[in-house]
Amino acid sequence: MKAKPTILKLGGSAITQKDKPLKVNRPVIENLAQEIAEANTPQLVLVHGGGSFGHPLAKQYAITDGFKDHSQIMGFSKTHDAMTTLNGLVVQALIQHNIPAVSIAPSSFVLTKSGRIEKMNSDIVTKLLDMKFVPVLYGDTVLDSDKGFAILSGDQLIAKLAIILDAEQIVIGVDVDGLCTADPKKDSSAKLIKHTDLKELKRKHSWIEKARVIDVTGGMYGKIIELIPAIEHGTRTTIVNATKKGTVRKALCNEKVKGTIIEKE
Amino acid sequence: MKAKPTILKLGGSAITQKDKPLKVNRPVIENLAQEIAEANTPQLVLVHGGGSFGHPLAKQYAITDGFKDHSQIMGFSKTHDAMTTLNGLVVQALIQHNIPAVSIAPSSFVLTKSGRIEKMNSDIVTKLLDMKFVPVLYGDTVLDSDKGFAILSGDQLIAKLAIILDAEQIVIGVDVDGLCTADPKKDSSAKLIKHTDLKELKRKHSWIEKARVIDVTGGMYGKIIELIPAIEHGTRTTIVNATKKGTVRKALCNEKVKGTIIEKE
Repeated sequence: MKAKPTILKLGGSAITQKDKPLKVNRPVIENLAQEIAEANTPQLVLVHGGGSFGHPLAKQYAITDGFKDHSQIMGFSKTHDAMTTLNGLVVQALIQHNIPAVSIAPSSFVLTKSGRIEKMNSDIVTKLLDMKFVPVLYGDTVLDSDKGFAILSGDQLIAKLAIILDAEQIVIGVDVDGLCTADPKKDSSAKLIKHTDLKELKRKHSWIEKARVIDVTGGMYGKIIELIPAIEHGTRTTIVNATKKGTVRKALCNEKVKGTIIEKE
Repeated sequence: MKAKPTILKLGGSAITQKDKPLKVNRPVIENLAQEIAEANTPQLVLVHGGGSFGHPLAKQYAITDGFKDHSQIMGFSKTHDAMTTLNGLVVQALIQHNIPAVSIAPSSFVLTKSGRIEKMNSDIVTKLLDMKFVPVLYGDTVLDSDKGFAILSGDQLIAKLAIILDAEQIVIGVDVDGLCTADPKKDSSAKLIKHTDLKELKRKHSWIEKARVIDVTGGMYGKIIELIPAIEHGTRTTIVNATKKGTVRKALCNEKVKGTIIEKE
């Protein structure tokens, strides 16, 4: 029987230098490529965020607000180009580690309506998995039937893909150890939530930090909200710190790892 | 009334250094971006070829033969990555000239059957044109329902787009002056065909050179064969030398220019 897919999300905060526009975090990307190669997960889909490539431009041109005036048009072009550039750097690191990565551009096949995925034909992703490729998608600028254009976050994308592909597991690599009771970067009393489920999440969601640095798609709170449909579908979700060596490999291999596991119940 | 689209194809032979793998012809790309900005064509779609980015890798891994063995899988990844890299360089040159270029990856939304386009939803290209973006597509590695994968040439793509979008004009920029009675690079007696139509083309096609250097998608002969459905549809096609200054701008502006014009009749 064919393995169910695993979706690995690499947060922009982990793979880019979040406060330096258009700068990757090359040691982290190199290490992640190495760990993904070692894990050798069958049926792997990779999705990455925008970090300092996508977010500053998206913010500067107010892309999430949708089309308001012509000055945003060049901003859409620039934001999309920055995201494809980051995607190229990720794909190239994977190829160098002999991973058959194939870039798939969400803007080329996804349409949103008021920022939510409206049309998305995932046939090509499925076929790539059948042929043992590793499709690599990303948060992207997309056209929107209500607003003209929008930002499709990597988080919205992974939840949708998890449901469509009936994924076994989502692994989310960020730059903190997982979901905490407060923002661990600001509050030393923040405690890591090692395991939680939907019911508890909904009860405790006021704990979750609501914003951090600049992140047009929301901080950890936004991420969790986006993931709920996938968790409801039954896809187990593990959040780990992708900037610490070994965590992503362990999570992909279902080994014990520091992080947050979120299950349906 | 909305202008009918113009499709500009930039041949890989013009925008790359065809005998140097993975090397662009930067002065040509810079100049073309400048000319496209000057022409300011409404409803412009750009498609470029692979040249020394796509062709050597596609040949090395026999991508056009389709999937035969696992060793080609990495080759597909590498060829696709090389094409997206070239696309990024073209898009960035356009953006620097204030052209709202948006990369659209054929592999993300086109499926072929035995190398011919089978499924292609062009909604996003149409919507981008409506919003006054310049979609930039390219010859690409694609998945194929018969062969596993295939190469979709930029030439096949422009003919299909011309029909779907009901294009007014196709401008093809190559590294020779147009269609000649022989290969102008090898035969000094080769004469430029300034004007021709479908009937004449079919009668004289033995004149057309059948192969040149390495070009997995066919040389000038292959290009013309691919274009026939668009010409039959009524799209006027002009072939010019994109390495000579001013030709692409003139062709886009319907000014008199050295080259080959092909019309339905």
